[in-house]
Amino acid sequence: MENFVFQNTTKIIFGKGTENNVGNEVKKLGKNILLHYGGGSIKETGLYNKVVNSLKEAGLNFIELGGVQPNPRLSLVYEGIELCRENDIDFILAVGGGSVIDSAKAIAAGVPYQGDVWDFYTHRAVVEEALPIGVVLTIAAAGSESSPGSVITKEEGNLKRDCLSDLLRPKFAILNPELTYTLPAYQTACGAADIMAHVLERYFTHTEDVDFTDRMLEAALKTVIKHTPIALDDPENYGARAQIMWAGTVAHGDLLGTGRVQDWASHNIEHELSGFYDVAHGAGLAVVFPAWMKYVYKENLARFAQYAVRVWDVEADFFDLEGLALEGIRRTEEFFSSIGLPVTLEELGIPDDKLELMAEMCTERGPLGNFKKLYKEDVMNIFKLAM
Amino acid sequence: MENFVFQNTTKIIFGKGTENNVGNEVKKLGKNILLHYGGGSIKETGLYNKVVNSLKEAGLNFIELGGVQPNPRLSLVYEGIELCRENDIDFILAVGGGSVIDSAKAIAAGVPYQGDVWDFYTHRAVVEEALPIGVVLTIAAAGSESSPGSVITKEEGNLKRDCLSDLLRPKFAILNPELTYTLPAYQTACGAADIMAHVLERYFTHTEDVDFTDRMLEAALKTVIKHTPIALDDPENYGARAQIMWAGTVAHGDLLGTGRVQDWASHNIEHELSGFYDVAHGAGLAVVFPAWMKYVYKENLARFAQYAVRVWDVEADFFDLEGLALEGIRRTEEFFSSIGLPVTLEELGIPDDKLELMAEMCTERGPLGNFKKLYKEDVMNIFKLAM
Repeated sequence: MENFVFQNTTKIIFGKGTENNVGNEVKKLGKNILLHYGGGSIKETGLYNKVVNSLKEAGLNFIELGGVQPNPRLSLVYEGIELCRENDIDFILAVGGGSVIDSAKAIAAGVPYQGDVWDFYTHRAVVEEALPIGVVLTIAAAGSESSPGSVITKEEGNLKRDCLSDLLRPKFAILNPELTYTLPAYQTACGAADIMAHVLERYFTHTEDVDFTDRMLEAALKTVIKHTPIALDDPENYGARAQIMWAGTVAHGDLLGTGRVQDWASHNIEHELSGFYDVAHGAGLAVVFPAWMKYVYKENLARFAQYAVRVWDVEADFFDLEGLALEGIRRTEEFFSSIGLPVTLEELGIPDDKLELMAEMCTERGPLGNFKKLYKEDVMNIFKLAM
Repeated sequence: MENFVFQNTTKIIFGKGTENNVGNEVKKLGKNILLHYGGGSIKETGLYNKVVNSLKEAGLNFIELGGVQPNPRLSLVYEGIELCRENDIDFILAVGGGSVIDSAKAIAAGVPYQGDVWDFYTHRAVVEEALPIGVVLTIAAAGSESSPGSVITKEEGNLKRDCLSDLLRPKFAILNPELTYTLPAYQTACGAADIMAHVLERYFTHTEDVDFTDRMLEAALKTVIKHTPIALDDPENYGARAQIMWAGTVAHGDLLGTGRVQDWASHNIEHELSGFYDVAHGAGLAVVFPAWMKYVYKENLARFAQYAVRVWDVEADFFDLEGLALEGIRRTEEFFSSIGLPVTLEELGIPDDKLELMAEMCTERGPLGNFKKLYKEDVMNIFKLAM
């Protein structure tokens, strides 16, 4: 086990009807609020009205900035920063999923910063100050509601890059599983793949003596594997939606990653796919992760065998660890497929003419990952396994 | 799943050598420090010198109050409160285990309070202000290093009572598994039982749709069950000590108890035993918990069957849930016995002449627990099963 420092200060407010109290939570932290959201879905579902009413009842001033798109854009972040400065905004309330939260984090970091906020995403600067953020979550997926991370896409050059800072952890996150009832099946499935990928990036490690976190990571995986098909069959099943939502937040809050070297190559590879082709992040991960597994499993057969037995209930065969490993990978792929996700680049709608360019771009700052260091040719091999 | 609010702000600093940096951590939070500890063991192991040197290097003023006993006493808390007031103490550093931390919490709550600090433990008053606390942990057991709880014994009347307040969560906890190498085997085993009991109090619930937390609780149990015998055989096994220590902190930080009705009857019963007879808390729990299980398992056979299968790897027998339940309980008791703990009141050295009185006292404020509401006669029945 590696030494670590862990602190997750986000206050989680979980359960039915919790969004109706958002105004009182915000009031403890700010006066002039930016209400940040995505497309029109929160207006259709009535969530927008609930939030606005709660903010008004709490006597708060607020302005709005909607229009966050999946794979949130830098241009809207710039717009948000200007808007906050002009209106003396002291708190940002993100109502939506990972894209809205990540966009809010970028704005929060950008407002007090004299330079270009993109500096934080190119790692030319470190966040030293940020506006506080709160969240009303509408999709179980990104885990951004209690994580220090934000991923933003710069349209020019199709650059999708991330920034990490504990200053960007939301102060509170309101998690009502009922708010996910209206999600389309494909988005529910993409969310599940995103959660599972956050777990898998932490699970595949060579760090020894990580039994406790292994088992908690397995807990998160088994929970999502069990409850996603239930939620797809019965979208208003509160129990299933609640299990997935809480697992999704915990999966990326990093408690489950403490004391272990993590990988994150698959996420970096996927960022090229969604940066170039604007595919859903979860769908991209469902394609990349099984291919990554097929390429790297020999680096640690015991770990992949454990994964197959403990997560997928494959019967242990101590004479054939490789067979076990491959069966675990097969079931992973089969599961993604069964919940309606693509598992090949073709199914994802990605042609092969930019694969070289993407492999080049995602490795230009050095090799990816830790489980196996991946160079450009490795990424190309993974793309081939994903065809 | 129940609605919940969860926030655990304690900063965890985990790993080898981390205690050497305690001065710098304290310096961020206070200037005049009370260094609070127990008996002489931290002086024998050299930890005392390391901490004192680190405080001095950070340029901090500090005074000392040692002498905390297991089942920490109210009289020393009063002494600590006076000392803090006389010396303008603004931060308390607890170096030790649960007793030292709980004593520090009581002092921290008492200093700014005009009334009697015992009011917080009789629930006549609520903590509204407290000095900040930091911890250097020396035993994996109580989980007090990131919990909001404190348990103090008032010598007059043998009253062992608890107080809960988020204001009492330590600001930081330094967890170096190496510091537990020198623990006697019996204390290591008592610590394991304490951790397991914190998990079991949360595990046995009738709340439905708690799959994720069930599995995380099972993760903590399996970790402690696997690694405690290793640590007993090989006290300087870093991996085993680290797994137990991290599981112990997480087990009681309450993430694993989110969204579920918890029980806590066994803890309340045990508090009478250690309040009257000053036995080690973990040893008392090893006696009370199996007896409690034998008394209540019929309230939810499915849950006890799941416990047997998932935690103790008993082969599932769907035609005999009661047999499964009883086998899980038998293995729990057998495990405690195998690590050198008492599992009967007699082995714990407790005579039967005060059982009535203890059963009376622990139920005088109302019935105990939630899995099954326990009245005086129920507690007596549990004592009989523990004979």
